[in-house]
Amino acid sequence: MNELALVDWLRETAGIGARIVAGIGDDCAIYRPKPGEDLLLKSDQLIEGIHFRSGLPPGLIGERALARPLSDIAAMGGEPRVCLLSLAAPRGQTEAWIKSLFRGFLRLARRTGAALAGGDLARANRIYCDAVVCGAVPRGQSLRRDGARPGDSLCVSGRLGRSWERRIQPRLELGRLLRGRATACIDISDGLALDLHRLASASGVAAEVDRVPLVRGATIERGLYGGEDYELLFTLPEGMVPPQGTTRIGKATRGKPGRIRFRGRAIEPRGYDHWA
Amino acid sequence: MNELALVDWLRETAGIGARIVAGIGDDCAIYRPKPGEDLLLKSDQLIEGIHFRSGLPPGLIGERALARPLSDIAAMGGEPRVCLLSLAAPRGQTEAWIKSLFRGFLRLARRTGAALAGGDLARANRIYCDAVVCGAVPRGQSLRRDGARPGDSLCVSGRLGRSWERRIQPRLELGRLLRGRATACIDISDGLALDLHRLASASGVAAEVDRVPLVRGATIERGLYGGEDYELLFTLPEGMVPPQGTTRIGKATRGKPGRIRFRGRAIEPRGYDHWA
Repeated sequence: MNELALVDWLRETAGIGARIVAGIGDDCAIYRPKPGEDLLLKSDQLIEGIHFRSGLPPGLIGERALARPLSDIAAMGGEPRVCLLSLAAPRGQTEAWIKSLFRGFLRLARRTGAALAGGDLARANRIYCDAVVCGAVPRGQSLRRDGARPGDSLCVSGRLGRSWERRIQPRLELGRLLRGRATACIDISDGLALDLHRLASASGVAAEVDRVPLVRGATIERGLYGGEDYELLFTLPEGMVPPQGTTRIGKATRGKPGRIRFRGRAIEPRGYDHWA
Repeated sequence: MNELALVDWLRETAGIGARIVAGIGDDCAIYRPKPGEDLLLKSDQLIEGIHFRSGLPPGLIGERALARPLSDIAAMGGEPRVCLLSLAAPRGQTEAWIKSLFRGFLRLARRTGAALAGGDLARANRIYCDAVVCGAVPRGQSLRRDGARPGDSLCVSGRLGRSWERRIQPRLELGRLLRGRATACIDISDGLALDLHRLASASGVAAEVDRVPLVRGATIERGLYGGEDYELLFTLPEGMVPPQGTTRIGKATRGKPGRIRFRGRAIEPRGYDHWA
């Protein structure tokens, strides 16, 4: 299958999304913003041998590639609108394999309203995905990571400590619900300790954690430092009841910005640093 | 250098662009569109061993990574606004090397108005870049590849047949100038023959090429099929004078959509197919 044929197949399979003036097949995708919305942009890589092991089913690779940046859109309270996929794959991958990867990607894209409207194709010696999502949020209402104040409740969605194999459910509905409520929000993509450190540093607060809701069988170590949760970590004004499916795990405090204590003892802001 | 330190350096070095509500350092970049503009989105990969040879100076890699999607923005008449860079590099690359790559990227970003506002960092066994550009164009005025009509003049900017080593100058000014004038436009990233085939197919016309302006020393073969020109190929209504620095090379005709003749003989729509 050459590039022209694959692009034709993609154009037919992806369809056209709302407010997409031009999708797959022109030099760029064209998106017509709604009046009064801010746009959120995020790209996220998923690389064979780094983010996933060789031999993973292609549909899961495609789904995962998109789920990662969608989780960032969720963390800012955004609604996905457009997405692009840059894909490089070895020559040995069959046409069926490539199409399965795109089908996994497109299933999640359709379910979340992110119309696939472009990207780039190349060859490489490993499977390499970079998914880009453009989301939207009413002007000025995006959730940021720098708004937590001392006294705010610290909350997480779901349960932590999951392993890679789980499918990510980007917390898009929760993100939207938190608009106008949460004072700060971030997604836990590199582990609770490291992402909490980022939120607290950006907000100029310290943090105290008393409890961590864990999946069955997970250790507290994994819950604090595991890097594959993609849940939302957010702060609420003191006394506000956390939404259903979320848990209060501690609070923001005065203190050295970014310092974290777990049950009274200081913990390191380590986690999954893809660059270290 | 860990990821937090590199992100801090990038935030300081990149600065903040116009209408960027949040740049490097939050989950997503936030861009506030101007009323009445359409947004153009494009991602383009640049991979060691595929798009460039190992050992290339990092500043040139960074510049090239951004120049490729900027050329697509130019081809649609857009003005660059925001960009992201997803970068994966082997552990062996030094801090100085990484910073040089970003400096090359940022130099071109500043010169063209594309504010670096985010991206993703990872490790891989090869150098891998995926640059994303979000550009803008007054509503409905983007140049498309599907508007050429039989009788239109076929034109290109600059001279063709260059080799990889040349730096790309994205034709952003020309693209803007062509808004409201050109009936169709595409950038020549995969060779004149293949990209002309794409434009003609999308427009439902055939094309006749009489001449190809070449750089000194280039063969006509290279001018037709070489894949590294990044000039603009566009059509103008019959009789309209081509802008300065551009050349009329032939015309669009009635005939089988996508069929190309060069000096009377049919030529194959081959070129640089990154996927073949």
